[in-house]
Amino acid sequence: MSNIQVITGKKDFIESLRGKKATFLLALSNTDTANIEGITQAGIPGLLHLTPTLDSEFVCTGEVRSLENIAKTPKGVPTPALMTRAVHLQNPFGDIELLNLGLKAVPKLDYFKIHNFDISPSGSIDNIAGIDAQEVFQKGTEFGQSYLKDCKNDYIILAESVPSGTTTATATAMALGYENVEDKFSSSFKNVPNSIKQDTIKKALSNIDKNDDLFEILGKVSDNMLIFNAGFILGLNNQIPLILAGGTQMASVLLIVNKILQTMDGKLDTSNLALCTTSWVANDKNSDIKSLIELNEFKLNSYYVDFDFSLSNHPALKLYDEGEAKEGVGAGGALIYGFLNGLSKEQITEQVEEFFK
Amino acid sequence: MSNIQVITGKKDFIESLRGKKATFLLALSNTDTANIEGITQAGIPGLLHLTPTLDSEFVCTGEVRSLENIAKTPKGVPTPALMTRAVHLQNPFGDIELLNLGLKAVPKLDYFKIHNFDISPSGSIDNIAGIDAQEVFQKGTEFGQSYLKDCKNDYIILAESVPSGTTTATATAMALGYENVEDKFSSSFKNVPNSIKQDTIKKALSNIDKNDDLFEILGKVSDNMLIFNAGFILGLNNQIPLILAGGTQMASVLLIVNKILQTMDGKLDTSNLALCTTSWVANDKNSDIKSLIELNEFKLNSYYVDFDFSLSNHPALKLYDEGEAKEGVGAGGALIYGFLNGLSKEQITEQVEEFFK
Repeated sequence: MSNIQVITGKKDFIESLRGKKATFLLALSNTDTANIEGITQAGIPGLLHLTPTLDSEFVCTGEVRSLENIAKTPKGVPTPALMTRAVHLQNPFGDIELLNLGLKAVPKLDYFKIHNFDISPSGSIDNIAGIDAQEVFQKGTEFGQSYLKDCKNDYIILAESVPSGTTTATATAMALGYENVEDKFSSSFKNVPNSIKQDTIKKALSNIDKNDDLFEILGKVSDNMLIFNAGFILGLNNQIPLILAGGTQMASVLLIVNKILQTMDGKLDTSNLALCTTSWVANDKNSDIKSLIELNEFKLNSYYVDFDFSLSNHPALKLYDEGEAKEGVGAGGALIYGFLNGLSKEQITEQVEEFFK
Repeated sequence: MSNIQVITGKKDFIESLRGKKATFLLALSNTDTANIEGITQAGIPGLLHLTPTLDSEFVCTGEVRSLENIAKTPKGVPTPALMTRAVHLQNPFGDIELLNLGLKAVPKLDYFKIHNFDISPSGSIDNIAGIDAQEVFQKGTEFGQSYLKDCKNDYIILAESVPSGTTTATATAMALGYENVEDKFSSSFKNVPNSIKQDTIKKALSNIDKNDDLFEILGKVSDNMLIFNAGFILGLNNQIPLILAGGTQMASVLLIVNKILQTMDGKLDTSNLALCTTSWVANDKNSDIKSLIELNEFKLNSYYVDFDFSLSNHPALKLYDEGEAKEGVGAGGALIYGFLNGLSKEQITEQVEEFFK
């Protein structure tokens, strides 16, 4: 009956946002982890680092400017940015702003606000990512604290595009001491190339010294988006409704927040915080986002959107329903935003199909 | 061609609201008058007092939480809240806020604003309702005065859910000295159980003392919603467009306003005030809302929505077209809000039918 399903918590939070306008913040970052051959499906081989750049160009303008064709995975799975853009066309976000959290190629966009934080792309975690995690975290908290007064809309949707981000997200959660989480993270692949991913994570974890503190650990095995967003959440401090639009990468952000709170003996009111993802993540048999969310000491409302491509015959789109790609560029949260403002599955499907014409 | 028809006044007021966003205020109250057997069709026998609670839960979340099934009348007429929710799904209100004007069961809702006024459910009017009418009225005026700065949207739709409210509305108008009004009020029944209603009203009027002042009269024969809303209208004082979304109960609210103005020798600019109801009320042969509106000294724009279930084959919905139920939970005003923002009769009908799947 409803297009929005509860993962954890209750419907009330998301229902209270019905009819309201959101700012769409898109956190973009590169990690050289993506250069490990075969580790991700999110992008074009050899040009994976362009994925966040192209995704953001497409969401903002409908054009892919830093390359001739829109990012497709090797099997031809189109970027989930298609869904985000489709919603934006039919029920626009109040604002779209980009967070450059270490991009190799700056999106070719005028007029759109690109927040720069002087953060470099991070290294591959199989050989120490080399992030100044404390600094990136602090930049996140400061941005969160100051952003409240800059936000012109009723709430914020925070999305991400980070190629090979599920690998860094998994390594991060494991390195922070969460147990039995390795098989709970999702992948952009239907048939996950586990050996490559596992090897990478194993190498990443082997670099951790038993004397490393929290931020030293994150600096070795994580990525800028995960660390920055954790800071952003803490800086924003529940002052405005915030939707984390993503799958298990956003779950990893929350696990960082949880670990920081535990380490500092702090508390965070999370009544204005929620995670929204796709049905492809929520119903994925090879991962378990619900368990990841429930590892946190704080309570969280989380939801998935009852959207698939059952109304489409397009072979590239059907791949989503077969388990490829699943989430990214805030697709799940964007779809929920569309449904909260009266869009139908038919309308969104038709718009996505339009992009292929 | 237009879905909005004039009852009194001109189209201009409602047309000027086309495309604008409304706050939906839902005034909820219980009167023990509803406990008189057979007096109302709005709710579940034995659990009539839950009707406003369930209606508000359903409008806000799509879920009925204080009971297992959505409120149906004995003949199975579904609550008009279905239409209000259908519009909210397809063209959301900017905000929904609830006014607790004496509820036996508080709606089980988080995040949604429930304004509490420390008002108790009122007694049955056949044995003196026992309302401190001056206090309830004053709470309404104070809320109206303060609400203007709290309203984030372009205008306000004020709706109600009060089981057996047409009985108290009729008694109120008669007790205030309006003549020949008894047969002008509508009923949730197609075949109105006149003897029960008439007996109740007769008993209510017999309790009035010739020395009773206006508020003493209201305290004996009225209900909290009628009195509070009259105060709200006067407190708001035409500062923002206000739609009274309801049928003859809202007409009774206006008759209270009119009587208060006459008593105090006051004037109210009503250029920003309108009443919106359903076609089932406006075209009801057993009542006459137009005459009730025209009893007031002030001019008023009033409208009904050209919506029925002629596009549906659902037997429960067809009962509306046969004269059962008619209005409530702001259905008429909500439908007009939907049409003012581009919804079609087909879309709304399909969404209402969805609720039965």
